[in-house]
Amino acid sequence: MPDCIFCKIVAGELPCSKLMEDDTSLAFMDIGPIRPGHALLIPKKHYETTVDMPGEEVAELLAHLPALAKAIVEATGADGYNVFQMNGACAGQVVPHVHFHLIPRHTDDGVAFGWPAGGYEEGDMEKLAEKIRSCMT
Amino acid sequence: MPDCIFCKIVAGELPCSKLMEDDTSLAFMDIGPIRPGHALLIPKKHYETTVDMPGEEVAELLAHLPALAKAIVEATGADGYNVFQMNGACAGQVVPHVHFHLIPRHTDDGVAFGWPAGGYEEGDMEKLAEKIRSCMT
Repeated sequence: MPDCIFCKIVAGELPCSKLMEDDTSLAFMDIGPIRPGHALLIPKKHYETTVDMPGEEVAELLAHLPALAKAIVEATGADGYNVFQMNGACAGQVVPHVHFHLIPRHTDDGVAFGWPAGGYEEGDMEKLAEKIRSCMT
Repeated sequence: MPDCIFCKIVAGELPCSKLMEDDTSLAFMDIGPIRPGHALLIPKKHYETTVDMPGEEVAELLAHLPALAKAIVEATGADGYNVFQMNGACAGQVVPHVHFHLIPRHTDDGVAFGWPAGGYEEGDMEKLAEKIRSCMT
């Protein structure tokens, strides 16, 4: 994708601090980190969102998650980590090329994302679940 | 894991609104949704965090992501979606059994997670990248 900055990074036309790479996947440091060690794991092939990807390519990409997360946790002495992936501008996606954020976390690190949990009226959850199931067939 | 509520859901000892299931993976509705249609995708086997999982089991689980996300987006008329996974209490993990949140999003839905991005002092990013790379070998 000519104007995609992640495609340019994959092609070596823009620099990155690379963490790992194979034929289909690339991981590198996020230059605007939530916490030091914040990394991005991306497919080399351009896909805007994960629904655009074949399941086996998502699988291939995420097979790297444990090894990459383990190295980030070890290098930063983190107590845990977040994995975030945004799809669409409404969901906070800024670069329209699939990327999984890996963010090392420490107890009391002051990062607060918020979790505005709600609920369902009686019966509504099961109705919506039925609709989702019907969309999977 | 005897006291794990997700293991009890897997075993059928606690109810859930099931969305899909195969031999190793289960997806069901989150009962405290950020937005209607908020679902959880979990491995049936008990792992506390994704670094505890073999890469191929993360792959197997996430191979379901596109089909599940597509159905949720279609059923809710969403404009996009978030994929969140927390590892460790410091990262906001409440149930210590790996789960990926899939949260449908609409433009102007009022959900704001925040994104407290920072930066690095000159040279610090590359130094930390080198340390992470050395932890991967």
